Amino acid sequence: MPENKYNCKFRGEVCRGHRERRNGYRAVTLWFTGLSGAGKSTLAHAVEKRLFELGANVYVFDGDNVRHGLCGDLSFSAEDRAENIRRIGEMTKLFLDAGTICLCAFITPRSGVREQLRNMHEPDDFFLVHVDCPVEVCESRDVKGYYKLAREGKIKNYTGINAPYDPPESPDLRIDSDAESLLESVNRVLAFLADKIALPEA
Amino acid sequence: MPENKYNCKFRGEVCRGHRERRNGYRAVTLWFTGLSGAGKSTLAHAVEKRLFELGANVYVFDGDNVRHGLCGDLSFSAEDRAENIRRIGEMTKLFLDAGTICLCAFITPRSGVREQLRNMHEPDDFFLVHVDCPVEVCESRDVKGYYKLAREGKIKNYTGINAPYDPPESPDLRIDSDAESLLESVNRVLAFLADKIALPEA
Repeated sequence: MPENKYNCKFRGEVCRGHRERRNGYRAVTLWFTGLSGAGKSTLAHAVEKRLFELGANVYVFDGDNVRHGLCGDLSFSAEDRAENIRRIGEMTKLFLDAGTICLCAFITPRSGVREQLRNMHEPDDFFLVHVDCPVEVCESRDVKGYYKLAREGKIKNYTGINAPYDPPESPDLRIDSDAESLLESVNRVLAFLADKIALPEA
Repeated sequence: MPENKYNCKFRGEVCRGHRERRNGYRAVTLWFTGLSGAGKSTLAHAVEKRLFELGANVYVFDGDNVRHGLCGDLSFSAEDRAENIRRIGEMTKLFLDAGTICLCAFITPRSGVREQLRNMHEPDDFFLVHVDCPVEVCESRDVKGYYKLAREGKIKNYTGINAPYDPPESPDLRIDSDAESLLESVNRVLAFLADKIALPEA
């Protein structure tokens, strides 16, 4: 069981260390970055299911549950996309403080924004997972039909088509979602986590 | 144990109902409203401690952990105060979805904003707790020294001095923090919760 290295930052009598001792593992954020269609949310939800079955407190954040609520006032301009990510980062820091493992699935195309996220966190709290997949494969899947619209010029600033994606130079974990099965990817994420957070029975 | 009345809103394979069944109680938000110095955060943290000892997932939100992060870009203007509360409400809805009991301690002076919060939630998810205390008592405590500064005109828009507080007409629970001991108040909140969420062993 991890030592309580966290002091109560606020005046609460229950702090992160208490929660982590009770849980038996550390809370961390895995931030899944990659192109639309690369399989970030699919992987995050599959990891969530496995962790939940192990008894962990875990939650997935993606566009589906954040964009309409907390960030419903934001557009897809570069500035608003950065603010979107900032708010999510600040929110998930409170989830970490509450002892919850955070699985965040967002394109997060710019390396500067990813660095900003990393700098917002303590070093052992944040890990970047690159869900890597060739844009041609993502485009051929085109689950939401957005790649087609972007090619036709009907969507502007679409990452990989008419907006840049900076491939991470040194992600903490790299998943090749085109070559690996989902099960293989989940197993690799779980092995990574087990090493980092003393996961129970993983 | 409560029935799972929640369908998965998103494509996650683990939904709120799964979490609540595992927890053995429902997640709800208790929103503590009242003047600065009325004892909202003190009560919320004491309730958190009791719930944590009962094994529950619970977390306190107040100015100390929200204002510098998620809402660090907002001022204390009426418009920004409303946006502050909106974001907190949206964030805590995700905590509810994650199965966490949310204890929110914010002045929330305007009845319209409190109604907006209530309308953002399902009827059984949100309960308003009025931590009631005469302004003279709050001012005499003046823990942060802000009442004095407000009286001197050095802080503008200070609730109770030069900005309005609308007393809730029908809070779900009313705590008379001037007349009750903290222990009495905690017991009353726990009794209220036990009735609403099937709290374990409370």
